[in-house]
Amino acid sequence: VNSKVIISEWRKLKLKMRCPGVWITLCVLCPCVVFGGKVLVFPIDGSHWVNMKVIIEELHSRGHEVSVVRSSDSWYIKETSPFYTSVTLSTGSGFDEDFLSNFVAKLLEIQREGKSAWMRFKLEMEMIEKGTEIHEKSGKMIEVLLEDKHLMQSIKDAKYDLVLTDPVSPVGAVVARYLGLPLVFNVRWTSTGEGHMTIAPSPLSYIPMTGTELSDKMSFFQRLLNVIVYFYTAVQIEVLLCPFYHGVIGKYLGPDIDYLSLFQAADLWLMRVDFVFEFPRPTMPNVVYMGGFQCKPAKALPQDLEDFVQSSGDHGVIVMSLGTLIGVLPRDLTDEIAAAFAKLPQKVIWRYTGDRPASLGNNTLLVDWMPQNDLLGHPKTKLFIAHGGTNGVQEAIYHGVPILGLPLIFDQPDNLLRIDVRGAGKIIDIFSMDQDIFYQGIQEVLNDPSYRMNMQRLSRLHRDQPMKPLDTALFWIEFVMRHKGAAHLRTDSYRMPWYSYHSVDVMLFLSGVVLIVLCTSVGFVRCLCSKFCVKTKRKHD
Amino acid sequence: VNSKVIISEWRKLKLKMRCPGVWITLCVLCPCVVFGGKVLVFPIDGSHWVNMKVIIEELHSRGHEVSVVRSSDSWYIKETSPFYTSVTLSTGSGFDEDFLSNFVAKLLEIQREGKSAWMRFKLEMEMIEKGTEIHEKSGKMIEVLLEDKHLMQSIKDAKYDLVLTDPVSPVGAVVARYLGLPLVFNVRWTSTGEGHMTIAPSPLSYIPMTGTELSDKMSFFQRLLNVIVYFYTAVQIEVLLCPFYHGVIGKYLGPDIDYLSLFQAADLWLMRVDFVFEFPRPTMPNVVYMGGFQCKPAKALPQDLEDFVQSSGDHGVIVMSLGTLIGVLPRDLTDEIAAAFAKLPQKVIWRYTGDRPASLGNNTLLVDWMPQNDLLGHPKTKLFIAHGGTNGVQEAIYHGVPILGLPLIFDQPDNLLRIDVRGAGKIIDIFSMDQDIFYQGIQEVLNDPSYRMNMQRLSRLHRDQPMKPLDTALFWIEFVMRHKGAAHLRTDSYRMPWYSYHSVDVMLFLSGVVLIVLCTSVGFVRCLCSKFCVKTKRKHD
Repeated sequence: VNSKVIISEWRKLKLKMRCPGVWITLCVLCPCVVFGGKVLVFPIDGSHWVNMKVIIEELHSRGHEVSVVRSSDSWYIKETSPFYTSVTLSTGSGFDEDFLSNFVAKLLEIQREGKSAWMRFKLEMEMIEKGTEIHEKSGKMIEVLLEDKHLMQSIKDAKYDLVLTDPVSPVGAVVARYLGLPLVFNVRWTSTGEGHMTIAPSPLSYIPMTGTELSDKMSFFQRLLNVIVYFYTAVQIEVLLCPFYHGVIGKYLGPDIDYLSLFQAADLWLMRVDFVFEFPRPTMPNVVYMGGFQCKPAKALPQDLEDFVQSSGDHGVIVMSLGTLIGVLPRDLTDEIAAAFAKLPQKVIWRYTGDRPASLGNNTLLVDWMPQNDLLGHPKTKLFIAHGGTNGVQEAIYHGVPILGLPLIFDQPDNLLRIDVRGAGKIIDIFSMDQDIFYQGIQEVLNDPSYRMNMQRLSRLHRDQPMKPLDTALFWIEFVMRHKGAAHLRTDSYRMPWYSYHSVDVMLFLSGVVLIVLCTSVGFVRCLCSKFCVKTKRKHD
Repeated sequence: VNSKVIISEWRKLKLKMRCPGVWITLCVLCPCVVFGGKVLVFPIDGSHWVNMKVIIEELHSRGHEVSVVRSSDSWYIKETSPFYTSVTLSTGSGFDEDFLSNFVAKLLEIQREGKSAWMRFKLEMEMIEKGTEIHEKSGKMIEVLLEDKHLMQSIKDAKYDLVLTDPVSPVGAVVARYLGLPLVFNVRWTSTGEGHMTIAPSPLSYIPMTGTELSDKMSFFQRLLNVIVYFYTAVQIEVLLCPFYHGVIGKYLGPDIDYLSLFQAADLWLMRVDFVFEFPRPTMPNVVYMGGFQCKPAKALPQDLEDFVQSSGDHGVIVMSLGTLIGVLPRDLTDEIAAAFAKLPQKVIWRYTGDRPASLGNNTLLVDWMPQNDLLGHPKTKLFIAHGGTNGVQEAIYHGVPILGLPLIFDQPDNLLRIDVRGAGKIIDIFSMDQDIFYQGIQEVLNDPSYRMNMQRLSRLHRDQPMKPLDTALFWIEFVMRHKGAAHLRTDSYRMPWYSYHSVDVMLFLSGVVLIVLCTSVGFVRCLCSKFCVKTKRKHD
């Protein structure tokens, strides 16, 4: 009996009612009875797509049909695939590979060459402009989609079971609400708006905001910073983000729905972290942690790479990659890195697409692309030098390889901080780094056994789960399909006005009552006293 | 290969290091590799023990050794058992079957006969006195245990892997802390002190306090009541509860540890609820929901009972039990119930240990004990009339049988409310109930198909889990054994002073800064103005 019995929910129920005996046998023989569902995906481009693709391929392999809505300027999301059908929208998404590479290059230049704060400010403005462009295009995309009566009718006719999307853009959430479909998020979340403002009550005293590079143990001034960042983010969401969508949301979903509530109404959050990586924090029953869902045992390396790795002998191998985005670095930095590597007895495999640095040693192999997971899982690999993207960090945890982190932007400093505070890696400031600092850093992580031991402890904890994270994620996606949502796991408290949610009205009422009782009592006592005094006075008179 | 390979953590690691090939084969063949652990259990008597026993038996069947610490006056907890060894302490626990039966009998008498509020108050005082006695005895038990050098040495020598206990009493938690052992709670939790004060941030606007009979959707005055009950509970814990243990905790664990922090430091909370039963609420990574862990498919009934059930024909059977505690009811109430049953075409199985009521019909079978799970799982069972204990309610959910609830004390009204708001049952006030009200209630739940449909929906949701709740509970207990705790799943934020936890210090500091900036600005502007005015005046002069 095939373990994946593709059978619709209704047929399943009918079968169950007609022949309970057969049903019980089926259930025992195939513990993962699923039905062929239909999933509408609104992905985000870049590294987010890499993650979404893992889920899509698994959905496909379990017999579900997947349709992906992509924009015409998509960069990683292909129009044709054996795993999904696609709908291409004529509006661009605004996501842009070149912009990010250029941004990082300029950032490195400005920071390393000590250029003026004005240059830095200009660069930040470029990023904000890009964000504005992306949100404008998202708003436009919603309008184009919902105005395309033909397309919308075909989506309705397809009778999707759920919308799977990334909360970086609200397009999927808006469409799900418009069509009344269950909503599942696939999200990398530490404690951005998603955490503090949309999911679970999150005390600012021990739950750091994203981008603050703070841990769950903070000094007074760190907590102060965290509170300030919280208010800054809240204002940013209210003033910068919401206005982009106010018009379209009001037009298509009605005036009562606001931007944040679109997210708060999600049936399920699939979080791309776990609590081996993330600090412990409050969560909700509809949040599923699937950190490391993309990790798998290492496969054999291509022969030439295996030969190179084996040639390292007992010294082992160092793997360096700054992610798909950063193939090239400024020449001076490249030279410093190459020179430090040349001094090592280890062999180095470095993903680098730029010109060969002059200082490159014989022990260093430059590659355009590397089978990162297989390399990290190789027993000869001693160290991973990484920019700190979530995927790389989770793979390093899975394989128990300590990290020397060179964080650049986005969640990278936060990700690496989580490794650093657990003693499983070390962070170096790439902006001020030279040959010696880099060499010292490598030596420290290689030679102090605590880094490797701590990372292997994290690896043991991460691998000790009742189910594989990807299976858990798929179970809950299919759960939402089977039950047409997961409303019982989600609080509806987000529908309350803020003053009720925070019990401000109750507190004011209670204070009022206490005040009235106090005033009345004081008044009464005063009245009594004055009467008594008058009487005493009269007597004395 | 036996699926339970008993092998210690160290040996496992050594084996892994020496021969990774063998290890991988072992892991594939036996997915639940465990090691024979040692568990020290501090149980609570009564229905709590019924739950603890399920876990103990499963621990035993998986090759773990269990030792139970019981008091000499134990009522359900036997000294000898095939599943555990026991240590009997000479101090009594204060838990008392007769007291509770008498309490309920008196409560019924006072409420049904409309006796004075003074009588009710006196009864409440009896309960508070009983609580005081239990806590005094718990404190005494801690002292007796920790002063018994011989016993403590033998506990130390036994090298337990963890302490498993119920947070109703802190004895287990104190011993775990004293010995530096990981701590696992087995607990029925809605939102008492455990919820609001010890685990996760719980907004009072949508998380009802235990005993309030409130749901997660409250009106203004319900929220007001919830806030008042919260403060009342907080004061109760501080004024009534903590003083009992202040002395012993200070003496044996040091002055820095307070009562609540003993609970907050637990490695794992095994909650005897799930979110099909409980309202959605914030939780923490170290809280595992195992509601319905004791439920199992129905076994065949004894032949005489099966014959009785089958004799009901298409009308089906009604099962009534008010729990092990309440075998007898006042005569008038029994007569009303029996008379209502006599009017029904259904057959009734009623667990009742008192005298046979005069009004009893031929369709009603009185029994001293019933195989409740097997009866609820019988296809002929149409209705469960219950007092609303957690176990019975979870069994009804598991088998999809709607409930007519007659709640009495403790968490029973809250449990039944959760069934009522989901339309899977109806609550009747037993204190004012007569024959007609009872009959009408039965008719309504039997004849309105929505009750059964809603309960069966809950049943489908409850059964649709990636793992059986008992297996999940055992996985996490063994996880704590394997990793000597689960500190990475627990927040340490409870160690912060309250003003830091709630960011009061940061807010005061920020307000101070804003005030200083405002005052300085106003002062500066005033200064400027006055100078300008003087100048203008001089000019005019």
